[in-house]
Amino acid sequence: MNGTRVVAPLQACEVERFDEVTDVLVIGYGCAGASAAFEAARSGADVLVVERASGAGGSSGLAGGELYLGGGTRVQRACGFDDSPEAMARFLQEALGPGADAEKITAYSEHSVEHFDWLVARGIGFKPSMWDEPAWVPPTDDGLMWMGENSWPYNELARPAPRGHRPAAAGFGGWLLMERLAGAADGRGVRTHYDTSATRLVVHSDRSVLGAVVRRYGSDYTVRARRGVVLTTGGFVDNDAMLALHAPHLLEHGKNSDGSDDGSGIRMAQAAGAAVKHMSAAQVGIALIPPMVARGVLVNGYGQRFINEDTYPGLIGHAALQRQHMNVWVIVDEDAYEAVPEEQRWGVRPYHVTDDLAELEEAISVPPGALRSTVEVYDEYAARGEDPYFHKAARWLRPLRAPYAAVEVRSGLRPPSASGGNAGRQARGTGASVFTTGGLHTSVDGHVLDIDGAAVPGLFAAGRASCGMHGSGYVSGTSLGDGTFFGRRAGRAAAAR
Amino acid sequence: MNGTRVVAPLQACEVERFDEVTDVLVIGYGCAGASAAFEAARSGADVLVVERASGAGGSSGLAGGELYLGGGTRVQRACGFDDSPEAMARFLQEALGPGADAEKITAYSEHSVEHFDWLVARGIGFKPSMWDEPAWVPPTDDGLMWMGENSWPYNELARPAPRGHRPAAAGFGGWLLMERLAGAADGRGVRTHYDTSATRLVVHSDRSVLGAVVRRYGSDYTVRARRGVVLTTGGFVDNDAMLALHAPHLLEHGKNSDGSDDGSGIRMAQAAGAAVKHMSAAQVGIALIPPMVARGVLVNGYGQRFINEDTYPGLIGHAALQRQHMNVWVIVDEDAYEAVPEEQRWGVRPYHVTDDLAELEEAISVPPGALRSTVEVYDEYAARGEDPYFHKAARWLRPLRAPYAAVEVRSGLRPPSASGGNAGRQARGTGASVFTTGGLHTSVDGHVLDIDGAAVPGLFAAGRASCGMHGSGYVSGTSLGDGTFFGRRAGRAAAAR
Repeated sequence: MNGTRVVAPLQACEVERFDEVTDVLVIGYGCAGASAAFEAARSGADVLVVERASGAGGSSGLAGGELYLGGGTRVQRACGFDDSPEAMARFLQEALGPGADAEKITAYSEHSVEHFDWLVARGIGFKPSMWDEPAWVPPTDDGLMWMGENSWPYNELARPAPRGHRPAAAGFGGWLLMERLAGAADGRGVRTHYDTSATRLVVHSDRSVLGAVVRRYGSDYTVRARRGVVLTTGGFVDNDAMLALHAPHLLEHGKNSDGSDDGSGIRMAQAAGAAVKHMSAAQVGIALIPPMVARGVLVNGYGQRFINEDTYPGLIGHAALQRQHMNVWVIVDEDAYEAVPEEQRWGVRPYHVTDDLAELEEAISVPPGALRSTVEVYDEYAARGEDPYFHKAARWLRPLRAPYAAVEVRSGLRPPSASGGNAGRQARGTGASVFTTGGLHTSVDGHVLDIDGAAVPGLFAAGRASCGMHGSGYVSGTSLGDGTFFGRRAGRAAAAR
Repeated sequence: MNGTRVVAPLQACEVERFDEVTDVLVIGYGCAGASAAFEAARSGADVLVVERASGAGGSSGLAGGELYLGGGTRVQRACGFDDSPEAMARFLQEALGPGADAEKITAYSEHSVEHFDWLVARGIGFKPSMWDEPAWVPPTDDGLMWMGENSWPYNELARPAPRGHRPAAAGFGGWLLMERLAGAADGRGVRTHYDTSATRLVVHSDRSVLGAVVRRYGSDYTVRARRGVVLTTGGFVDNDAMLALHAPHLLEHGKNSDGSDDGSGIRMAQAAGAAVKHMSAAQVGIALIPPMVARGVLVNGYGQRFINEDTYPGLIGHAALQRQHMNVWVIVDEDAYEAVPEEQRWGVRPYHVTDDLAELEEAISVPPGALRSTVEVYDEYAARGEDPYFHKAARWLRPLRAPYAAVEVRSGLRPPSASGGNAGRQARGTGASVFTTGGLHTSVDGHVLDIDGAAVPGLFAAGRASCGMHGSGYVSGTSLGDGTFFGRRAGRAAAAR
């Protein structure tokens, strides 16, 4: 079991001679590793990346591809949106909180336009057009989308601007992001060892990190990193033993990963004295069709609404898992169901269709009268374009009309094509698919911090091996976003040592 | 700031001569420390306890005093209840989960009758009589009370038996528990240094723990522990920097502690390679009067019920904080309010009294119609003795009658006397008072485990410095319960080394 593999560091005095030497050793070749490797190499360092798979990508390569960027990017301006770093930081502090890292959010927001330009310079294009409906992955190649900024309560916090930036690929765009980032690193002379996983750090008696033990085809060898080791090994959603210790509520759900997010980098660093934070936090994907849900009502196991149905679906997923244990149903009428073209329904079918809400209550096992009471109140207000409960936008509000149907969230989604990326692993059984956002405690420059808050000399981290800027909340785009942004910083910091 | 005090271990090679020598060093003199010290001394070890305060007690001494015990104790049998270790374990696994430690729960339940007898032999009496209403701290000296076992959904899991055992003291009983446990340790020749806090562990190059650096009146000195160091330093609710990293949702609430639960033992051990678990978990006290709430309805900020009002108030507090962010109100009628004698109302006053639910909705800022809808449905079912939503027991169900009143939970409780213990620190501002239950990862025998799951040689922990048997859930009595139970084991394991 991965959770019990020995990760206690190897003492430097036990290493006679290192088998290989580099300036900067990057462990893990997802978006954070590629960004770190590129910047370290651009800073003049000799860089080696070790990656356990047979190529670059990791979970980043399977991701939807949205990057949370703003403060006035070229795409935002082209779509007619004014934005500011302050408004962006205000949204992130709230959406990623409580416990979100204010210093990192400020840096991330202030330098977001520069980061956008850096991505573009690496060959990642963003079409200057807007997708203006709630969506996980829009069916178009529009380059900009909302991530909840325009929905309550966020629309009251700061001037809303859409900040979900999508690489110019129809559907999932993580593969494109990774293809370009790894290509850029390659162009800078970064060396790579695939099929190679790190197993332990090598530490000096003064607790500084000198390198790592890596394993390739069953053989261990040692790598000396003269300037620093950068851990970009991903989160720990694939390690059930770690989930049981830190995030047991995630155990039963689907996993949003490439299957190798086993927390090995987090554990190696912890064993060398590193601190962690927010280890129970997670991204939560939920198996629902956003534009259908926005037109219907989402209820819990007591027939009660609990969130505005038109907000970013990642925020709905978080609330559904954390507060309702995924015991949720979507109630729609024919208009809400038919408003979504069949090819965008991802296999979702009505669980039960009826003119009689009492019958629907029985079918989905909510208390008799509960659904009727919820729908009556909803309809009464919707007719006036109001939602005094959760402030769903008037655009989506109208009374539901019989026949009604329930859509079961836990039945999951089937992606429209076999190449559907992460969605293929979503939602078997509970309707949720998750990845962890907690991880190593790092400085704004990517240094791994110890229990005293001091940098562990020679050790850096970024991406989901670290907690990054996240608190206990999450919105999509911030993981690829902070992985690339703070990955770059970690690479530069390591090279500068 | 406590959170940033340097705790990196002192290397043994830097210690010329230890200033003091003992077999077992116990750090912290709450219930776990006293139990560990007693058992270590009874096993023949020379035992020294260091305690930062000027006497034994810690947060244990301010606690209500309930101990979660069962499986057929003398008190249970005298009150007419059959119980079994299996039923007890079943309840604990569910109430303390997800992530509750099955091995520890099994041991705790199987040996609970023996532990009850051990407590009695230390001079802690339990009156063989039952308090049969929902309560935080019953107004009598009855020795037995329910902790949610008889309420839904727990009553369907296993045969309900009450397992809250209360030391024979009217009101808060933590002081009595601590007086007797410290007295027992004293009787076994345990030495104590008060006004003395541990600051760092002393570790050998093989990572085993040899002792600790302690500070007294501003001077540091070293203590060699030949057999082991037992950390019983409590949780970290008083350390805002640690809360910000691990449990930011707890930051704004009241603290259920003696003010010194700063996580120092957890941090010292982590810096020496120890693992932690469930660091976001907590006990949640909520400022409400249980027998009043059981007769009324508890609603969230949308006027929706969310839990059976007759369950153990600690379970209500957990749901109110974790799922409703403490935005909750109690709705009562005159009968519900008057059913509780004034001296048991702890200063609770109606926030608003009216015949008109619409007026009440406005007063407490829930959407118009929301409260009316909830109360109508509640009344309709209550008249038939039913609660299809949350299965409140028929005993507490009857339709509410105007005039209605709202009771504001966040206004808090005022204890009936100045000696009211923890209640005096409850509920300033949010209606919640909390302590952390996450902490060091330990074996069932009290060894502190490292990231690889191996014992850190010479290091032991119990009480809230450890996670104990807790997952992300909590019921009262399990903290004093597992503190004393696993404290005893840690003391024996240290002495046996």
